[in-house]
Amino acid sequence: MIADQVTVAFQGEYGAFSESAVRRILGTEVTLRPCETFDDMFDAVRSSDADCCVAPIENSLAGSIHRNYDLMIDSGLRIFGETNVKIVHNVIAAPAVTLANVRRIYSHPVALAQCLRFFRANPDIEAIPTHDTAGAVREVLLRQRPDEAAIASARAAEIYGGTILASSVEDHQQNFTRFLLLAAGTSDIQPVEPARRWKTSLMLRLPDKPGVLFRALGAFALFDIDLSKIESRPIEGRPWEYAFYIDVIGNRTEAPLERAISNLEQMAEELHVLGSYPTRW
Amino acid sequence: MIADQVTVAFQGEYGAFSESAVRRILGTEVTLRPCETFDDMFDAVRSSDADCCVAPIENSLAGSIHRNYDLMIDSGLRIFGETNVKIVHNVIAAPAVTLANVRRIYSHPVALAQCLRFFRANPDIEAIPTHDTAGAVREVLLRQRPDEAAIASARAAEIYGGTILASSVEDHQQNFTRFLLLAAGTSDIQPVEPARRWKTSLMLRLPDKPGVLFRALGAFALFDIDLSKIESRPIEGRPWEYAFYIDVIGNRTEAPLERAISNLEQMAEELHVLGSYPTRW
Repeated sequence: MIADQVTVAFQGEYGAFSESAVRRILGTEVTLRPCETFDDMFDAVRSSDADCCVAPIENSLAGSIHRNYDLMIDSGLRIFGETNVKIVHNVIAAPAVTLANVRRIYSHPVALAQCLRFFRANPDIEAIPTHDTAGAVREVLLRQRPDEAAIASARAAEIYGGTILASSVEDHQQNFTRFLLLAAGTSDIQPVEPARRWKTSLMLRLPDKPGVLFRALGAFALFDIDLSKIESRPIEGRPWEYAFYIDVIGNRTEAPLERAISNLEQMAEELHVLGSYPTRW
Repeated sequence: MIADQVTVAFQGEYGAFSESAVRRILGTEVTLRPCETFDDMFDAVRSSDADCCVAPIENSLAGSIHRNYDLMIDSGLRIFGETNVKIVHNVIAAPAVTLANVRRIYSHPVALAQCLRFFRANPDIEAIPTHDTAGAVREVLLRQRPDEAAIASARAAEIYGGTILASSVEDHQQNFTRFLLLAAGTSDIQPVEPARRWKTSLMLRLPDKPGVLFRALGAFALFDIDLSKIESRPIEGRPWEYAFYIDVIGNRTEAPLERAISNLEQMAEELHVLGSYPTRW
Protein backbone atom coordinates (compact mmCIF):
# COMPACT_ATOMS: atom_id res chain seq x y z
CA MET A 1 0.00 0.00 0.00
CA ILE A 2 1.52 3.35 -1.01
CA ALA A 3 1.54 5.94 1.78
CA ASP A 4 -0.22 8.74 -0.13
CA GLN A 5 -3.11 6.39 -0.90
CA VAL A 6 -3.60 5.48 2.75
CA THR A 7 -6.37 7.05 4.85
CA VAL A 8 -5.77 6.91 8.61
CA ALA A 9 -8.44 7.47 11.26
CA PHE A 10 -7.40 8.95 14.62
CA GLN A 11 -9.29 10.31 17.62
CA GLY A 12 -9.13 14.06 18.17
CA GLU A 13 -8.57 17.13 16.05
CA TYR A 14 -5.65 18.08 13.81
CA GLY A 15 -2.75 18.74 16.18
CA ALA A 16 -3.85 16.12 18.75
CA PHE A 17 -1.13 13.85 20.17
CA SER A 18 -2.78 11.06 18.14
CA GLU A 19 -1.92 12.94 14.96
CA SER A 20 1.75 13.02 16.02
CA ALA A 21 1.52 9.25 16.50
CA VAL A 22 0.14 8.84 12.95
CA ARG A 23 3.06 10.89 11.57
CA ARG A 24 5.61 8.78 13.44
CA ILE A 25 4.14 5.45 12.38
CA LEU A 26 3.13 6.26 8.80
CA GLY A 27 4.99 9.44 7.79
CA THR A 28 3.56 12.65 6.38
CA GLU A 29 2.09 11.48 3.07
CA VAL A 30 -1.03 9.80 4.43
CA THR A 31 -4.55 11.22 4.37
CA LEU A 32 -5.89 11.97 7.85
CA ARG A 33 -9.42 11.26 9.05
CA PRO A 34 -9.98 12.94 12.46
CA CYS A 35 -12.74 11.27 14.53
CA GLU A 36 -14.63 12.60 17.54
CA THR A 37 -14.55 9.37 19.57
CA PHE A 38 -12.69 6.05 19.74
CA ASP A 39 -15.87 4.28 18.60
CA ASP A 40 -16.07 6.55 15.53
CA MET A 41 -12.44 5.78 14.74
CA PHE A 42 -13.03 2.00 14.72
CA ASP A 43 -16.28 2.52 12.75
CA ALA A 44 -14.33 4.44 10.09
CA VAL A 45 -12.10 1.40 9.49
CA ARG A 46 -15.02 -1.04 9.64
CA SER A 47 -16.96 0.93 7.01
CA SER A 48 -13.81 1.30 4.82
CA ASP A 49 -13.84 5.09 5.23
CA ALA A 50 -10.28 4.62 6.48
CA ASP A 51 -7.70 1.93 5.73
CA CYS A 52 -6.38 1.84 9.28
CA CYS A 53 -6.43 3.67 12.58
CA VAL A 54 -3.87 4.67 15.20
CA ALA A 55 -5.19 4.10 18.72
CA PRO A 56 -3.67 5.07 22.11
CA ILE A 57 -3.41 1.89 24.20
CA GLU A 58 -1.52 2.93 27.35
CA ASN A 59 0.05 5.92 29.06
CA SER A 60 3.01 5.88 31.43
CA LEU A 61 1.08 7.83 34.10
CA ALA A 62 -2.52 6.85 33.40
CA GLY A 63 -2.15 3.13 32.52
CA SER A 64 -3.78 0.93 29.89
CA ILE A 65 -6.81 2.17 28.00
CA HIS A 66 -8.99 -0.93 28.44
CA ARG A 67 -11.72 0.57 26.29
CA ASN A 68 -9.45 0.50 23.24
CA TYR A 69 -8.45 -3.11 23.97
CA ASP A 70 -12.19 -3.94 23.93
CA LEU A 71 -12.78 -2.05 20.68
CA MET A 72 -9.73 -3.69 19.11
CA ILE A 73 -10.88 -7.21 20.04
CA ASP A 74 -14.52 -6.53 19.00
CA SER A 75 -13.40 -5.06 15.67
CA GLY A 76 -11.20 -8.03 14.73
CA LEU A 77 -8.53 -5.56 13.55
CA ARG A 78 -4.88 -6.63 13.85
CA ILE A 79 -1.84 -4.72 15.13
CA PHE A 80 0.63 -3.73 12.39
CA GLY A 81 2.94 -1.44 14.35
CA GLU A 82 3.39 0.68 17.45
CA THR A 83 5.02 3.92 18.54
CA ASN A 84 5.55 5.97 21.69
CA VAL A 85 4.77 9.68 21.76
CA LYS A 86 6.21 11.86 24.52
CA ILE A 87 3.44 14.06 25.87
CA VAL A 88 4.86 17.61 26.02
CA HIS A 89 2.49 20.41 26.98
CA ASN A 90 3.06 23.95 25.69
CA VAL A 91 1.37 27.28 26.41
CA ILE A 92 0.26 28.54 23.00
CA ALA A 93 -1.25 31.92 22.07
CA ALA A 94 -1.78 34.26 19.15
CA PRO A 95 1.42 35.94 17.90
CA ALA A 96 2.22 39.15 19.86
CA VAL A 97 0.57 37.82 23.04
CA THR A 98 2.98 37.82 26.01
CA LEU A 99 2.74 35.44 28.96
CA ALA A 100 2.57 38.41 31.35
CA ASN A 101 -0.78 39.44 29.84
CA VAL A 102 -2.37 35.97 29.79
CA ARG A 103 -5.22 35.54 32.30
CA ARG A 104 -7.01 32.46 30.94
CA ILE A 105 -5.59 29.20 29.60
CA TYR A 106 -7.87 26.69 27.87
CA SER A 107 -7.25 22.95 27.53
CA HIS A 108 -8.58 19.46 28.26
CA PRO A 109 -8.78 19.07 32.07
CA VAL A 110 -6.45 16.07 31.99
CA ALA A 111 -3.80 18.28 30.34
CA LEU A 112 -4.55 21.15 32.78
CA ALA A 113 -4.15 18.73 35.71
CA GLN A 114 -0.73 17.67 34.36
CA CYS A 115 0.53 21.29 34.52
CA LEU A 116 -0.27 22.17 38.15
CA ARG A 117 3.23 23.48 38.86
CA PHE A 118 2.87 26.01 36.06
CA PHE A 119 -0.51 27.21 37.37
CA ARG A 120 0.83 27.47 40.93
CA ALA A 121 3.74 29.58 39.67
CA ASN A 122 1.27 31.77 37.74
CA PRO A 123 -1.61 32.32 40.17
CA ASP A 124 -3.14 35.14 38.04
CA ILE A 125 -3.93 32.67 35.26
CA GLU A 126 -7.22 30.78 35.33
CA ALA A 127 -7.35 27.20 33.94
CA ILE A 128 -10.49 26.68 31.85
CA PRO A 129 -11.53 23.17 30.71
CA THR A 130 -12.35 22.38 27.07
CA HIS A 131 -13.11 19.23 25.07
CA ASP A 132 -9.61 18.77 23.71
CA THR A 133 -6.14 20.30 23.58
CA ALA A 134 -5.79 21.05 19.88
CA GLY A 135 -9.36 22.43 19.67
CA ALA A 136 -8.48 24.88 22.46
CA VAL A 137 -5.58 26.21 20.36
CA ARG A 138 -7.83 26.58 17.32
CA GLU A 139 -10.38 28.60 19.31
CA VAL A 140 -7.80 30.81 21.02
CA LEU A 141 -6.24 31.59 17.63
CA LEU A 142 -9.66 32.38 16.14
CA ARG A 143 -10.45 34.88 18.91
CA GLN A 144 -6.95 36.45 18.92
CA ARG A 145 -7.45 37.94 22.40
CA PRO A 146 -4.34 39.33 24.14
CA ASP A 147 -5.14 37.63 27.48
CA GLU A 148 -5.89 34.07 26.30
CA ALA A 149 -3.76 31.00 25.66
CA ALA A 150 -4.19 27.22 25.32
CA ILE A 151 -2.17 24.18 26.44
CA ALA A 152 -1.43 21.63 23.71
CA SER A 153 1.25 19.99 21.56
CA ALA A 154 3.84 22.00 19.58
CA ARG A 155 2.23 20.47 16.49
CA ALA A 156 -1.06 22.23 17.33
CA ALA A 157 0.82 25.58 17.52
CA GLU A 158 2.26 24.88 14.06
CA ILE A 159 -1.09 23.92 12.51
CA TYR A 160 -3.13 26.84 13.85
CA GLY A 161 -0.34 29.47 13.59
CA GLY A 162 0.15 29.92 17.34
CA THR A 163 3.24 31.05 19.22
CA ILE A 164 4.66 28.94 22.04
CA LEU A 165 4.92 31.17 25.13
CA ALA A 166 6.22 28.43 27.44
CA SER A 167 7.26 24.91 26.49
CA SER A 168 7.29 21.66 28.52
CA VAL A 169 5.04 22.98 31.27
CA GLU A 170 3.97 19.47 32.32
CA ASP A 171 4.74 18.41 35.92
CA HIS A 172 6.12 14.99 35.00
CA GLN A 173 8.57 14.80 32.12
CA GLN A 174 8.29 11.03 31.81
CA ASN A 175 4.84 11.11 30.22
CA PHE A 176 4.57 8.79 27.21
CA THR A 177 1.60 7.36 25.35
CA ARG A 178 1.90 4.14 23.37
CA PHE A 179 -0.14 3.96 20.16
CA LEU A 180 -0.99 0.94 17.97
CA LEU A 181 -1.44 0.89 14.20
CA LEU A 182 -4.54 -1.24 13.51
CA ALA A 183 -5.93 -2.53 10.23
CA ALA A 184 -7.82 -5.51 8.79
CA GLY A 185 -5.82 -8.75 8.88
CA THR A 186 -5.62 -8.71 5.06
CA SER A 187 -3.94 -5.27 4.94
CA ASP A 188 -0.33 -4.88 3.76
CA ILE A 189 0.24 -1.62 5.66
CA GLN A 190 3.69 -1.12 7.22
CA PRO A 191 5.10 1.40 9.68
CA VAL A 192 7.81 3.72 8.34
CA GLU A 193 9.81 3.78 11.60
CA PRO A 194 12.89 1.55 11.41
CA ALA A 195 12.29 -1.72 13.26
CA ARG A 196 14.60 -3.06 15.95
CA ARG A 197 12.67 -6.22 16.75
CA TRP A 198 9.27 -7.90 16.42
CA LYS A 199 6.61 -8.01 19.06
CA THR A 200 3.54 -10.21 19.30
CA SER A 201 0.49 -9.18 21.35
CA LEU A 202 -1.93 -11.71 22.81
CA MET A 203 -5.16 -11.62 24.78
CA LEU A 204 -6.02 -14.77 26.68
CA ARG A 205 -8.60 -15.91 29.16
CA LEU A 206 -7.58 -18.58 31.65
CA PRO A 207 -9.72 -20.87 33.79
CA ASP A 208 -9.88 -19.99 37.51
CA LYS A 209 -7.42 -22.52 38.96
CA PRO A 210 -4.49 -21.85 41.32
CA GLY A 211 -1.20 -21.46 39.50
CA VAL A 212 -2.82 -21.22 36.06
CA LEU A 213 -0.98 -18.01 35.14
CA PHE A 214 2.31 -19.52 36.32
CA ARG A 215 1.82 -22.46 33.96
CA ALA A 216 0.72 -20.15 31.13
CA LEU A 217 3.94 -18.14 31.48
CA GLY A 218 5.80 -21.45 31.51
CA ALA A 219 4.78 -21.80 27.83
CA PHE A 220 7.05 -18.81 27.10
CA ALA A 221 9.78 -19.61 29.67
CA LEU A 222 10.16 -23.06 28.05
CA PHE A 223 11.48 -21.40 24.87
CA ASP A 224 13.25 -18.43 26.53
CA ILE A 225 10.73 -16.00 25.05
CA ASP A 226 10.87 -12.54 26.68
CA LEU A 227 7.73 -10.76 27.88
CA SER A 228 7.45 -7.00 27.44
CA LYS A 229 4.02 -6.57 29.01
CA ILE A 230 1.59 -8.49 31.16
CA GLU A 231 -1.62 -7.21 32.64
CA SER A 232 -4.59 -8.93 34.22
CA ARG A 233 -8.06 -7.56 33.79
CA PRO A 234 -11.07 -8.81 35.73
CA ILE A 235 -13.86 -10.08 33.45
CA GLU A 236 -17.01 -8.13 34.25
CA GLY A 237 -19.83 -10.27 35.57
CA ARG A 238 -17.51 -13.25 36.14
CA PRO A 239 -15.80 -12.76 39.50
CA TRP A 240 -12.46 -14.57 39.76
CA GLU A 241 -12.03 -14.94 36.05
CA TYR A 242 -9.39 -12.85 34.34
CA ALA A 243 -8.32 -11.84 30.91
CA PHE A 244 -4.62 -11.22 30.35
CA TYR A 245 -2.89 -8.91 27.91
CA ILE A 246 0.56 -10.26 27.13
CA ASP A 247 3.19 -8.83 24.74
CA VAL A 248 6.18 -11.01 23.92
CA ILE A 249 9.31 -10.41 21.86
CA GLY A 250 9.26 -12.25 18.54
CA ASN A 251 7.24 -12.87 15.40
CA ARG A 252 4.49 -15.43 15.35
CA THR A 253 6.09 -17.02 12.28
CA GLU A 254 9.17 -18.05 14.34
CA ALA A 255 8.97 -21.71 15.38
CA PRO A 256 9.51 -21.29 19.17
CA LEU A 257 6.83 -18.60 19.49
CA GLU A 258 4.44 -20.53 17.26
CA ARG A 259 4.99 -23.56 19.51
CA ALA A 260 4.51 -21.51 22.68
CA ILE A 261 1.22 -20.09 21.36
CA SER A 262 0.05 -23.54 20.35
CA ASN A 263 0.85 -24.86 23.86
CA LEU A 264 -0.97 -21.89 25.36
CA GLU A 265 -4.06 -22.67 23.26
CA GLN A 266 -4.24 -26.02 25.08
CA MET A 267 -4.70 -24.35 28.47
CA ALA A 268 -6.50 -21.08 27.65
CA GLU A 269 -10.28 -20.80 27.48
CA GLU A 270 -9.83 -18.12 24.85
CA LEU A 271 -6.76 -16.86 23.00
CA HIS A 272 -6.49 -14.02 20.47
CA VAL A 273 -3.26 -13.25 18.63
CA LEU A 274 -3.72 -9.50 18.18
CA GLY A 275 -0.79 -9.21 15.80
CA SER A 276 2.95 -9.63 15.17
CA TYR A 277 4.54 -6.30 14.26
CA PRO A 278 7.90 -4.61 13.80
CA THR A 279 8.84 -2.08 16.46
CA ARG A 280 11.74 0.13 17.36
CA TRP A 281 10.73 0.07 21.07
CA MET B 1 -9.67 4.77 66.00
CA ILE B 2 -13.31 5.82 66.39
CA ALA B 3 -15.00 6.72 63.10
CA ASP B 4 -16.23 10.17 64.12
CA GLN B 5 -12.69 11.16 65.08
CA VAL B 6 -11.26 10.17 61.71
CA THR B 7 -10.48 12.77 59.03
CA VAL B 8 -10.34 11.38 55.49
CA ALA B 9 -8.78 13.15 52.51
CA PHE B 10 -10.20 12.50 49.04
CA GLN B 11 -9.73 14.08 45.62
CA GLY B 12 -12.63 16.09 44.27
CA GLU B 13 -15.56 18.00 45.69
CA TYR B 14 -18.38 16.84 47.95
CA GLY B 15 -20.46 14.49 45.82
CA ALA B 16 -17.48 13.17 43.80
CA PHE B 17 -17.31 9.40 43.24
CA SER B 18 -14.35 9.43 45.66
CA GLU B 19 -16.69 10.62 48.41
CA SER B 20 -18.96 7.62 47.73
CA ALA B 21 -15.89 5.41 48.11
CA VAL B 22 -15.08 7.02 51.48
CA ARG B 23 -18.65 6.34 52.68
CA ARG B 24 -18.44 2.71 51.59
CA ILE B 25 -15.08 2.06 53.24
CA LEU B 26 -15.48 4.13 56.41
CA GLY B 27 -19.17 4.84 56.85
CA THR B 28 -20.89 8.18 57.33
CA GLU B 29 -19.44 9.35 60.66
CA VAL B 30 -16.02 10.41 59.39
CA THR B 31 -14.89 13.99 58.75
CA LEU B 32 -14.23 14.68 55.07
CA ARG B 33 -11.33 16.68 53.69
CA PRO B 34 -11.88 17.36 49.94
CA CYS B 35 -8.61 18.00 48.03
CA GLU B 36 -8.11 19.57 44.62
CA THR B 37 -5.46 17.12 43.38
CA PHE B 38 -4.08 13.66 44.16
CA ASP B 39 -0.83 15.29 45.34
CA ASP B 40 -2.78 17.51 47.77
CA MET B 41 -4.58 14.43 49.11
CA PHE B 42 -1.31 12.62 49.92
CA ASP B 43 0.13 15.87 51.37
CA ALA B 44 -2.87 16.14 53.70
CA VAL B 45 -2.02 12.74 55.22
CA ARG B 46 1.72 13.47 55.31
CA SER B 47 1.14 16.72 57.21
CA SER B 48 -1.38 15.03 59.57
CA ASP B 49 -4.21 17.25 58.31
CA ALA B 50 -5.96 13.95 57.59
CA ASP B 51 -5.63 10.51 59.20
CA CYS B 52 -5.99 8.66 55.93
CA CYS B 53 -7.01 9.05 52.31
CA VAL B 54 -9.11 7.09 49.82
CA ALA B 55 -7.45 6.96 46.39
CA PRO B 56 -8.78 5.61 43.07
CA ILE B 57 -6.27 3.03 41.79
CA GLU B 58 -7.92 1.49 38.72
CA ASN B 59 -11.02 1.70 36.56
CA SER B 60 -12.59 -1.14 34.59
CA LEU B 61 -12.57 0.91 31.35
CA ALA B 62 -9.62 3.25 31.86
CA GLY B 63 -7.11 0.93 33.59
CA SER B 64 -4.67 1.45 36.47
CA ILE B 65 -3.92 4.95 37.69
CA HIS B 66 -0.10 4.66 37.75
CA ARG B 67 0.23 8.14 39.18
CA ASN B 68 -1.49 7.05 42.40
CA TYR B 69 0.73 3.95 42.61
CA ASP B 70 3.72 6.33 42.45
CA LEU B 71 2.29 8.66 45.09
CA MET B 72 1.44 5.68 47.32
CA ILE B 73 4.97 4.25 47.10
CA ASP B 74 6.64 7.67 47.56
CA SER B 75 4.43 8.46 50.56
CA GLY B 76 5.21 5.19 52.37
CA LEU B 77 1.50 4.90 53.24
CA ARG B 78 0.03 1.38 53.58
CA ILE B 79 -3.20 -0.10 52.24
CA PHE B 80 -5.83 -0.76 54.94
CA GLY B 81 -8.82 -1.60 52.76
CA GLU B 82 -10.40 -1.37 49.33
CA THR B 83 -13.78 -0.92 47.72
CA ASN B 84 -15.34 -0.81 44.26
CA VAL B 85 -17.69 1.99 43.26
CA LYS B 86 -19.96 1.58 40.25
CA ILE B 87 -19.75 4.73 38.15
CA VAL B 88 -23.33 5.74 37.36
CA HIS B 89 -23.89 9.04 35.54
CA ASN B 90 -27.11 11.01 36.06
CA VAL B 91 -28.50 14.14 34.44
CA ILE B 92 -29.14 16.53 37.33
CA ALA B 93 -30.86 19.93 37.29
CA ALA B 94 -32.64 22.41 39.55
CA PRO B 95 -36.08 21.24 40.72
CA ALA B 96 -38.84 22.11 38.19
CA VAL B 97 -36.44 21.87 35.21
CA THR B 98 -37.63 19.37 32.60
CA LEU B 99 -35.36 17.45 30.26
CA ALA B 100 -37.24 18.82 27.24
CA ASN B 101 -36.07 22.35 28.12
CA VAL B 102 -32.42 21.50 28.80
CA ARG B 103 -30.02 22.87 26.16
CA ARG B 104 -26.66 22.68 27.96
CA ILE B 105 -25.20 19.92 30.16
CA TYR B 106 -22.02 20.56 32.15
CA SER B 107 -19.59 17.90 33.40
CA HIS B 108 -15.99 16.65 33.34
CA PRO B 109 -15.17 15.70 29.72
CA VAL B 110 -14.35 12.13 30.72
CA ALA B 111 -17.91 11.83 32.10
CA LEU B 112 -19.37 13.56 29.02
CA ALA B 113 -17.45 11.14 26.78
CA GLN B 114 -18.94 8.19 28.69
CA CYS B 115 -22.49 9.36 27.84
CA LEU B 116 -22.28 9.69 24.04
CA ARG B 117 -25.41 7.65 23.44
CA PHE B 118 -27.43 10.08 25.54
CA PHE B 119 -26.07 13.09 23.63
CA ARG B 120 -26.74 11.40 20.28
CA ALA B 121 -30.33 10.75 21.34
CA ASN B 122 -30.65 14.38 22.46
CA PRO B 123 -28.97 16.37 19.67
CA ASP B 124 -30.38 19.72 20.91
CA ILE B 125 -28.29 19.48 24.08
CA GLU B 126 -24.75 20.84 24.08
CA ALA B 127 -22.10 19.08 26.22
CA ILE B 128 -19.93 21.66 28.03
CA PRO B 129 -16.71 20.59 29.82
CA THR B 130 -15.98 21.57 33.43
CA HIS B 131 -13.29 20.70 35.99
CA ASP B 132 -15.32 18.05 37.79
CA THR B 133 -18.70 16.34 37.93
CA ALA B 134 -19.90 17.37 41.41
CA GLY B 135 -18.71 20.97 40.91
CA ALA B 136 -20.85 21.15 37.74
CA VAL B 137 -23.94 20.19 39.79
CA ARG B 138 -23.12 22.84 42.41
CA GLU B 139 -22.83 25.55 39.75
CA VAL B 140 -25.98 24.52 37.87
CA LEU B 141 -27.93 24.55 41.14
CA LEU B 142 -26.53 27.99 42.05
CA ARG B 143 -27.65 29.48 38.71
CA GLN B 144 -31.07 27.73 38.73
CA ARG B 145 -31.52 28.23 34.97
CA PRO B 146 -34.37 26.29 33.30
CA ASP B 147 -32.18 25.14 30.37
CA GLU B 148 -29.10 23.84 32.22
CA ALA B 149 -28.18 20.50 33.78
CA ALA B 150 -25.06 18.62 34.90
CA ILE B 151 -23.89 15.00 34.72
CA ALA B 152 -22.70 13.52 38.03
CA SER B 153 -23.39 10.95 40.76
CA ALA B 154 -26.76 10.61 42.50
CA ARG B 155 -24.93 11.63 45.68
CA ALA B 156 -24.09 15.01 44.09
CA ALA B 157 -27.81 15.56 43.36
CA GLU B 158 -28.58 14.81 47.01
CA ILE B 159 -25.89 17.14 48.38
CA TYR B 160 -26.69 20.16 46.20
CA GLY B 161 -30.48 19.66 46.14
CA GLY B 162 -30.74 18.73 42.47
CA THR B 163 -33.36 16.61 40.73
CA ILE B 164 -32.34 13.60 38.63
CA LEU B 165 -33.87 14.06 35.15
CA ALA B 166 -32.33 10.90 33.69
CA SER B 167 -30.41 8.20 35.52
CA SER B 168 -27.72 5.76 34.29
CA VAL B 169 -27.02 7.66 31.09
CA GLU B 170 -23.52 6.12 30.76
CA ASP B 171 -22.81 4.09 27.59
CA HIS B 172 -21.17 1.17 29.40
CA GLN B 173 -22.89 -0.18 32.48
CA GLN B 174 -19.85 -2.16 33.61
CA ASN B 175 -17.90 0.88 34.75
CA PHE B 176 -16.28 0.38 38.17
CA THR B 177 -13.51 2.21 39.97
CA ARG B 178 -11.45 0.49 42.65
CA PHE B 179 -10.38 2.68 45.58
CA LEU B 180 -7.77 2.02 48.29
CA LEU B 181 -7.86 3.19 51.91
CA LEU B 182 -4.34 4.44 52.72
CA ALA B 183 -2.83 5.48 56.06
CA ALA B 184 0.48 5.46 57.91
CA GLY B 185 1.72 1.94 58.78
CA THR B 186 1.13 2.67 62.50
CA SER B 187 -2.57 3.48 62.00
CA ASP B 188 -5.30 1.22 63.43
CA ILE B 189 -7.94 2.31 60.92
CA GLN B 190 -10.34 -0.39 59.67
CA PRO B 191 -12.89 -0.52 56.87
CA VAL B 192 -16.52 -0.90 57.92
CA GLU B 193 -17.48 -3.12 54.97
CA PRO B 194 -17.75 -6.78 55.99
CA ALA B 195 -14.66 -8.70 54.88
CA ARG B 196 -14.81 -11.88 52.82
CA ARG B 197 -11.07 -12.48 52.57
CA TRP B 198 -7.67 -10.81 52.91
CA LYS B 199 -5.61 -9.43 50.09
CA THR B 200 -1.93 -8.46 50.03
CA SER B 201 -0.57 -5.96 47.50
CA LEU B 202 3.06 -5.96 46.39
CA MET B 203 5.24 -3.87 44.12
CA LEU B 204 8.40 -5.54 42.89
CA ARG B 205 11.20 -4.80 40.48
CA LEU B 206 12.86 -7.75 38.78
CA PRO B 207 16.23 -7.97 37.01
CA ASP B 208 16.06 -8.16 33.20
CA LYS B 209 16.59 -11.89 32.62
CA PRO B 210 14.48 -14.26 30.50
CA GLY B 211 11.91 -16.16 32.54
CA VAL B 212 12.38 -14.00 35.63
CA LEU B 213 8.66 -13.27 35.99
CA PHE B 214 7.86 -16.96 35.55
CA ARG B 215 10.19 -17.80 38.46
CA ALA B 216 8.79 -14.94 40.55
CA LEU B 217 5.24 -16.27 40.10
CA GLY B 218 6.62 -19.69 41.04
CA ALA B 219 7.11 -18.28 44.54
CA PHE B 220 3.30 -18.07 44.82
CA ALA B 221 2.49 -21.23 42.83
CA LEU B 222 4.71 -23.23 45.22
CA PHE B 223 2.25 -22.53 48.05
CA ASP B 224 -0.97 -22.47 45.96
CA ILE B 225 -1.41 -18.75 46.57
CA ASP B 226 -3.96 -17.15 44.22
CA LEU B 227 -3.22 -13.95 42.31
CA SER B 228 -5.97 -11.38 41.86
CA LYS B 229 -3.96 -8.83 39.86
CA ILE B 230 -0.72 -8.61 37.96
CA GLU B 231 0.50 -5.72 35.90
CA SER B 232 3.86 -4.84 34.43
CA ARG B 233 4.96 -1.26 34.16
CA PRO B 234 8.04 -0.14 32.24
CA ILE B 235 10.53 1.74 34.43
CA GLU B 236 11.11 5.15 32.89
CA GLY B 237 14.67 5.73 31.76
CA ARG B 238 15.54 2.03 32.14
CA PRO B 239 14.46 0.25 28.97
CA TRP B 240 13.74 -3.46 29.49
CA GLU B 241 13.36 -3.15 33.23
CA TYR B 242 9.92 -3.52 34.68
CA ALA B 243 8.08 -2.95 37.89
CA PHE B 244 5.20 -5.30 38.69
CA TYR B 245 2.09 -4.70 40.71
CA ILE B 246 0.85 -7.97 42.16
CA ASP B 247 -2.17 -8.59 44.41
CA VAL B 248 -2.49 -12.01 46.04
CA ILE B 249 -5.15 -13.59 48.23
CA GLY B 250 -4.07 -13.89 51.85
CA ASN B 251 -2.68 -12.01 54.83
CA ARG B 252 1.02 -11.44 55.17
CA THR B 253 0.88 -12.93 58.66
CA GLU B 254 -0.05 -16.36 57.22
CA ALA B 255 2.99 -18.64 57.04
CA PRO B 256 2.76 -19.66 53.33
CA LEU B 257 2.43 -16.06 52.13
CA GLU B 258 5.17 -14.87 54.47
CA ARG B 259 7.41 -17.63 53.04
CA ALA B 260 6.49 -16.74 49.44
CA ILE B 261 7.32 -13.07 50.05
CA SER B 262 10.61 -14.01 51.68
CA ASN B 263 11.50 -16.21 48.67
CA LEU B 264 10.56 -13.37 46.36
CA GLU B 265 12.86 -11.00 48.23
CA GLN B 266 15.75 -13.27 47.20
CA MET B 267 15.13 -12.69 43.50
CA ALA B 268 13.67 -9.17 43.34
CA GLU B 269 15.81 -6.05 43.05
CA GLU B 270 13.18 -4.19 45.03
CA LEU B 271 10.07 -5.38 46.86
CA HIS B 272 7.46 -3.31 48.70
CA VAL B 273 4.63 -4.91 50.64
CA LEU B 274 1.98 -2.21 50.19
CA GLY B 275 -0.36 -3.74 52.73
CA SER B 276 -2.46 -6.72 53.83
CA TYR B 277 -6.11 -5.74 54.13
CA PRO B 278 -9.60 -7.20 54.55
CA THR B 279 -11.84 -7.00 51.49
CA ARG B 280 -15.25 -8.09 50.42
CA TRP B 281 -14.18 -8.21 46.74
